[in-house]
Amino acid sequence: MSFFRKNISELEPYVPGKQPKENIVKLNANENPYPPSPKVVSAIDNFSKDNLRLYSDAVSEEVRKAAANSFRVNTDEIIVGNGSDDILTIIVRSFLETDGKIAVVDPSYTLYETLAEIHGVETEKFSLEEDYSLPESYFGTKAKVKFLPNPNAQTGTLFPQENIVRLCAESRGVVVIDEAYAAFANVTSIPLIKEFKNLVVLRTLSKSHSLAGMRIGFGIAEAEIVSGLMKVKDSYNVNSLSQVAATAALQDESYVQKNIEKIIETRNWFASALTDRGWEVVPSEANFVLAKPSIGEAKDIFAELEKSGYLVRHFSTPRLNDKLRFSIGTKEQMLGLLEKL
Amino acid sequence: MSFFRKNISELEPYVPGKQPKENIVKLNANENPYPPSPKVVSAIDNFSKDNLRLYSDAVSEEVRKAAANSFRVNTDEIIVGNGSDDILTIIVRSFLETDGKIAVVDPSYTLYETLAEIHGVETEKFSLEEDYSLPESYFGTKAKVKFLPNPNAQTGTLFPQENIVRLCAESRGVVVIDEAYAAFANVTSIPLIKEFKNLVVLRTLSKSHSLAGMRIGFGIAEAEIVSGLMKVKDSYNVNSLSQVAATAALQDESYVQKNIEKIIETRNWFASALTDRGWEVVPSEANFVLAKPSIGEAKDIFAELEKSGYLVRHFSTPRLNDKLRFSIGTKEQMLGLLEKL
Repeated sequence: MSFFRKNISELEPYVPGKQPKENIVKLNANENPYPPSPKVVSAIDNFSKDNLRLYSDAVSEEVRKAAANSFRVNTDEIIVGNGSDDILTIIVRSFLETDGKIAVVDPSYTLYETLAEIHGVETEKFSLEEDYSLPESYFGTKAKVKFLPNPNAQTGTLFPQENIVRLCAESRGVVVIDEAYAAFANVTSIPLIKEFKNLVVLRTLSKSHSLAGMRIGFGIAEAEIVSGLMKVKDSYNVNSLSQVAATAALQDESYVQKNIEKIIETRNWFASALTDRGWEVVPSEANFVLAKPSIGEAKDIFAELEKSGYLVRHFSTPRLNDKLRFSIGTKEQMLGLLEKL
Repeated sequence: MSFFRKNISELEPYVPGKQPKENIVKLNANENPYPPSPKVVSAIDNFSKDNLRLYSDAVSEEVRKAAANSFRVNTDEIIVGNGSDDILTIIVRSFLETDGKIAVVDPSYTLYETLAEIHGVETEKFSLEEDYSLPESYFGTKAKVKFLPNPNAQTGTLFPQENIVRLCAESRGVVVIDEAYAAFANVTSIPLIKEFKNLVVLRTLSKSHSLAGMRIGFGIAEAEIVSGLMKVKDSYNVNSLSQVAATAALQDESYVQKNIEKIIETRNWFASALTDRGWEVVPSEANFVLAKPSIGEAKDIFAELEKSGYLVRHFSTPRLNDKLRFSIGTKEQMLGLLEKL
């Protein structure tokens, strides 16, 4: 006999990218190859550690202010989460009755479906077209919540802004645009929150701001949506040091922008280099590249690379299992990787 | 029209203790008056901040090892949370179908009921006896999950271990013993997890280890329960700095123990001092004291104290509204407070 709900007992949990301890070039989890801003390090160093005895600010007010400034919205249009995964969980718990459904595209970030399973609701999955564009049927679905990363996870492809506008306009439920990679595309749906009350845009400091280890994510939406989500979050969901780190990171835009530009440059160069070697490269607007080798099995190349000290990502799901996903590291790391290929 | 579930729209959110910015003696949130261990500060300082660009360890393995050693259980009998609130949320999401119920006592920690409301399940509330002991009916309830803090929140009273054993033995569902304050009582139900498969014990480093701002909590239970809860937690629920802080804090038992002893001593002295002044003091085994003034309204005294620079806690709920809850600070702080009373 199990105490767990049936959906939990049967759940195949989401598997995050490995965090190996050995010395390996880590290009598997879309982390930023550059360290966080020196201002982040100072902010953490200068924070009086004696004050860790006190609870953190329950609503992360300073972070909200810095984020409001950075994303050009109002403070009350932002909720801060313990990573954007925290916001995703809050969204599922906030909007979905047990007879509700979520709608996702495939291939994409599989965590949405896992969260739906945990909550006990169904997932409608829409296969992307051959060129990874949205199928017509996705617009029409009546699912209570639609989750769409833009740029898309795994593929790196960007859905055009007309798609997002149309999704918001035609959906009666909530549309969540997960912009984990948007900093590398220079496109955002954030301004659309002023127009569409059913839009929630997610951002994170994990990738663009080199702070994956600090767990800072944002939900950006109309104030009424934000205030409802705030009721559902854990009381003190963001710790004190993550709050000072986030504030400092958001205030050092120029440092972040320089790294983003370097990553975009490396990505574009790496994508052409792969193409030159005969790989079939999916056009990416994110900080990774998905590509199919010209000869050999992706799975075998993955294993060989790991042996030579390069950890990349291989997914065993249809449409991805013949490809490899390479997170964009420094130019030196990508040169080393290319040599091995 | 609202996108939110009805239960969320109607939800009165849990209200955490205020975190004022002004200079005030803060005795309202049961924080530890002493700073965290110097070893915690070194661990944070020595952590290479460049590595914050990488995701944190998804399962907090080093913390689990240190906690296993400290709580004398196996590593696989521990789940680490972003505060014990995170574990509470995971428990509600793991065990409760929408027709399930939770059972709580009153007065107690009100967050359990809030979490049940968010999940959309009912709360059966059992009034404690006049002396704050468990009513007979609580043992018999068929609720899927029973939440009981020991020592109890708000009152500080300790339920005897026979109660806990009987609760576990007679409950067909899960029994959650929330030991947020147990370090100040020198009693724990942790060893009972070897005997009862339906027991989950919660601990936190917020109070005993002076790390409220770092958000570190634990669920301790049989390995099968823990592995189910792990499937439900967010992928990277504890950030990297909280992980190093937690590990260091757990490894410096002697520092923590000294602070606990000082707090217990101050608590006992403060409780007698209040009794001497004619207050009706509830016997506390926690790091706070609940007491009813001999003259005057609790609410007025609360307001007067705040004006004089002392923030304590007043609850407007029945059985608590005629009393004040004083977190135990340093002896100097409590002397100052007594002068004002």
